[in-house]
Amino acid sequence: MTTLTEKKLDSQVVYRGKILNLRVDTVLLPDGRTGTREVVEYTGAVAIVALNEKKEVFLVRQYRYPVGKELLEIPAGKMENGEEPLQCAQRELAEETGLWAARWQPLCSFYSTPGFTNEKMHLFLARDLRQERQHPDEDEFVQVVKVSLDEALAMLWRGEICDAKSTVGLLAVHYLLAREMV
Amino acid sequence: MTTLTEKKLDSQVVYRGKILNLRVDTVLLPDGRTGTREVVEYTGAVAIVALNEKKEVFLVRQYRYPVGKELLEIPAGKMENGEEPLQCAQRELAEETGLWAARWQPLCSFYSTPGFTNEKMHLFLARDLRQERQHPDEDEFVQVVKVSLDEALAMLWRGEICDAKSTVGLLAVHYLLAREMV
Repeated sequence: MTTLTEKKLDSQVVYRGKILNLRVDTVLLPDGRTGTREVVEYTGAVAIVALNEKKEVFLVRQYRYPVGKELLEIPAGKMENGEEPLQCAQRELAEETGLWAARWQPLCSFYSTPGFTNEKMHLFLARDLRQERQHPDEDEFVQVVKVSLDEALAMLWRGEICDAKSTVGLLAVHYLLAREMV
Repeated sequence: MTTLTEKKLDSQVVYRGKILNLRVDTVLLPDGRTGTREVVEYTGAVAIVALNEKKEVFLVRQYRYPVGKELLEIPAGKMENGEEPLQCAQRELAEETGLWAARWQPLCSFYSTPGFTNEKMHLFLARDLRQERQHPDEDEFVQVVKVSLDEALAMLWRGEICDAKSTVGLLAVHYLLAREMV
């Protein structure tokens, strides 16, 4: 089997920003020619399915500027300097929903869209929930919505929940719970 | 309920590239203050679960430069000028795997990572497959792998399939087939 690897020949940072950087690299392709690769550098992120004893999940509604509309998603956020995924998940869940969970399980990790960014998302299941106080970031405006897991799955097929991490989170939890794998 | 909308005050394109553009906008936040939003503009994309009569799926292995490794994913690609999602899905499946499908169904559409990009992915189920000839793009190097849907799901939990669209695609098809919703 031949290698599919692309080797970096040159790299130019074209933008260093607040939440992301953009690099344009020249690469050696497997057939010996050269190509260009545009790469958005983004820190790791987490997403959380917070499930209570009634099999309800907590969603957050927020305006997503890049897509120009409000989306209903599972709680999520990006890792800060030196933070571990679990630590980040606990902080984000508390900030966005005011929830504290006694039981945490990592479910899977996945690249959001590996054709142009290195963003990796770590998905957790949080159970044994206790409601405390919501305290979002100062430029973050979110509303918390609680629905049954079954209703959330129905919302997926109706297009009312329509981002990748929430779709993965809800389907993964449904699959793993049904098989007693979590 | 107060609005969560953020209004564009200013917009600067900082990069126009081959597969993406980067914009930095100044926005009016819901509380009247201003903020900055970094937005990666990306065209729509498609992903395909190609399922044969033996309940096997076709995966493609390719080097993903942004994450620096080979990934095993469902076939996917981005929409070209004026292309409709279904037309794009048919073209990408043929290019990457050489497969032609008589039966196509849209499953769902989702934003890859709406915190920083407008990329929207349209997911299809392709059945009644016929093998023709693979003809990838000139800078695309892919290897086709066929596994059972059950094995593909096991690979998800082992981390051997680890990108968002493939995870959504495999879990969605499993869920919908079990309920005879497709």
